[in-house]
Amino acid sequence: MSLNLQLPIIQAPMAGGGDTPELVAAVSNSSGLGFIGAAYLSPEQITAAGTRVQELTSRPFGINLFSPQSLEASAEATVSKKDIARAAEKIARYHTELGLPAPAVPKPSAISFDAQLAAALECGAAYFSFTFGLLPPKSVAAIKAHGIFVMGTATTVDEALELEKSGVDAIVAQGAEAGGHRGSFTDFAAGMIGTVALVPQIADAVRLPVIASGGIMDGRGIVAALALGASAVQMGTAFLLCDESGIPEAYKAALLAAREDQTRITRAFSGRPARGIVNRFMREVEAGTDDAILPFPLQNSLTRPLRNSAVKAGLGEFLNLWSGQGVRMARRQSAKDLIERLASEIDATIASLKSAQHT
Amino acid sequence: MSLNLQLPIIQAPMAGGGDTPELVAAVSNSSGLGFIGAAYLSPEQITAAGTRVQELTSRPFGINLFSPQSLEASAEATVSKKDIARAAEKIARYHTELGLPAPAVPKPSAISFDAQLAAALECGAAYFSFTFGLLPPKSVAAIKAHGIFVMGTATTVDEALELEKSGVDAIVAQGAEAGGHRGSFTDFAAGMIGTVALVPQIADAVRLPVIASGGIMDGRGIVAALALGASAVQMGTAFLLCDESGIPEAYKAALLAAREDQTRITRAFSGRPARGIVNRFMREVEAGTDDAILPFPLQNSLTRPLRNSAVKAGLGEFLNLWSGQGVRMARRQSAKDLIERLASEIDATIASLKSAQHT
Repeated sequence: MSLNLQLPIIQAPMAGGGDTPELVAAVSNSSGLGFIGAAYLSPEQITAAGTRVQELTSRPFGINLFSPQSLEASAEATVSKKDIARAAEKIARYHTELGLPAPAVPKPSAISFDAQLAAALECGAAYFSFTFGLLPPKSVAAIKAHGIFVMGTATTVDEALELEKSGVDAIVAQGAEAGGHRGSFTDFAAGMIGTVALVPQIADAVRLPVIASGGIMDGRGIVAALALGASAVQMGTAFLLCDESGIPEAYKAALLAAREDQTRITRAFSGRPARGIVNRFMREVEAGTDDAILPFPLQNSLTRPLRNSAVKAGLGEFLNLWSGQGVRMARRQSAKDLIERLASEIDATIASLKSAQHT
Repeated sequence: MSLNLQLPIIQAPMAGGGDTPELVAAVSNSSGLGFIGAAYLSPEQITAAGTRVQELTSRPFGINLFSPQSLEASAEATVSKKDIARAAEKIARYHTELGLPAPAVPKPSAISFDAQLAAALECGAAYFSFTFGLLPPKSVAAIKAHGIFVMGTATTVDEALELEKSGVDAIVAQGAEAGGHRGSFTDFAAGMIGTVALVPQIADAVRLPVIASGGIMDGRGIVAALALGASAVQMGTAFLLCDESGIPEAYKAALLAAREDQTRITRAFSGRPARGIVNRFMREVEAGTDDAILPFPLQNSLTRPLRNSAVKAGLGEFLNLWSGQGVRMARRQSAKDLIERLASEIDATIASLKSAQHT
């Protein structure tokens, strides 16, 4: 099964505000592939998002969920009342600063993956992707039965092979440069492989199309990914600054100011390793031991009121400022302008390479 | 000043055995640029290596030293007798296992950078590169006065800008994927930028040619680097398995068996962060706190007798198995065969990209 894209450009699903229906539709209308990051959405919200995207475009788009494996794993983790009290205590001072009530005991997510998936299958998406693990065989079968192209996320060759065996149609190879959550489902640290090394090694190991992600910001990066053996790229950070992106202005300002050496991997916001611009919350919550950070998704629930309040107050120091390492290349523009620029950069970059040929 | 290479392929200097004069000459004779890693060589050894390379090739080659900054910094570090005793105690059991006398108190390096440089300037090299910092202005001037092309190593944009200001002719952009020592001279952790993100951001920031390194193993990686804005690539791991490489057979066997997710950064061997294949020595010396590892170059001196003994005994578990993250792509072959293959892969990769063009 082929990816069948007009341009080899996929807008990364960015659960948490970036990928508004307006952005998704604008990307798809510009011959890219827009993606709804639906991991934190209820089935009703998924249906509404799909409906809205279809009002804005008749072109194909995608939808993304977290593997239910990620929730099972954390449900099994023993989290004592003492752990929760310690994690809550760690962020209590920020609640005080922002005039919020003391942090509440976080509840396990009430969202059912099966209900999310059922809504996703009917939301109009032609592509489905997932991170944080494998899907149950019945889910893969259901997606395929709906004629939807299905893509899993790998950070190592072994993860890619497991995904191939599970029946997906393509592999998203997530390099260590990528912003946001690591898609790893084996050992996270071992899966910190740079895109230049990861993509060809996965491409050599699987028979499926490979989509490169991590650090790709412009036409140079796209051509590099294609040279490495990818069929397309997935770009997140580059789309965060688009006019249609829904992230707060404080987040956009932080992206515009950030350098490539100012992001790092943190568990402080969600309990899962993710790459973001270093800010006060990361520095202070990570200080000392890791003991005061709960497993995903409990830490995510615990920090949500603070993050929501920080959005309203425009305080970047308390936001999860997910960003990849290519952040210096981010520009404010419309999604249409970005994609048109990317398409012309692809052509110019390939043309410039011809002088390097020797035959 | 242009790099002026026949092929955009530089064999990375690999102080410590890989880059024999035979390898350096074979690379240069095959239209690549061979490089002597001379950081641990005495002036006399540098002269001898240069003489031997010139017996084997009339083509240009390069020589590499560590910046004297790296030694100044560690000389200033306070290392107490207690620190040394703790570090020696940590590795004493391996000395017992291998039948060696107890670890000796390591001595600061007796090698003078100025004496090394004086020998390097007269050794016949047409290129000079360095890592771990900047060079003193008088050293840069001396290299240039000898008509030698000079290249510094950067792991961040800021490091690249500092190098440009210091007067170098080109920047080696070392991505996080790279094997061996990190070239960082500001904060090492902040400098863990993947090649796909690092190269274009450095290329945008400086006016000098950029040489990409880290995770590049074949023609796909080379074309990717050129697309990202590099003028050439520097490859280490790919050359370690060449017939002419001087590394022990146990090291070659480890490279052939290693996966992309089995390397990590360690200070255990030398005191400076470097990427190698995880083995028993790394696991055990890193266990617990970092307290039992001395700063560079003391830790390097401390562990040298053990490493030398492990080479003789063919024990990979005690060797510094430097390797990049592209290790699955390493193959046994002659340097000539490797470079011929790379040249033809470059052409094939560029040809395959033309189908991605839209104009």
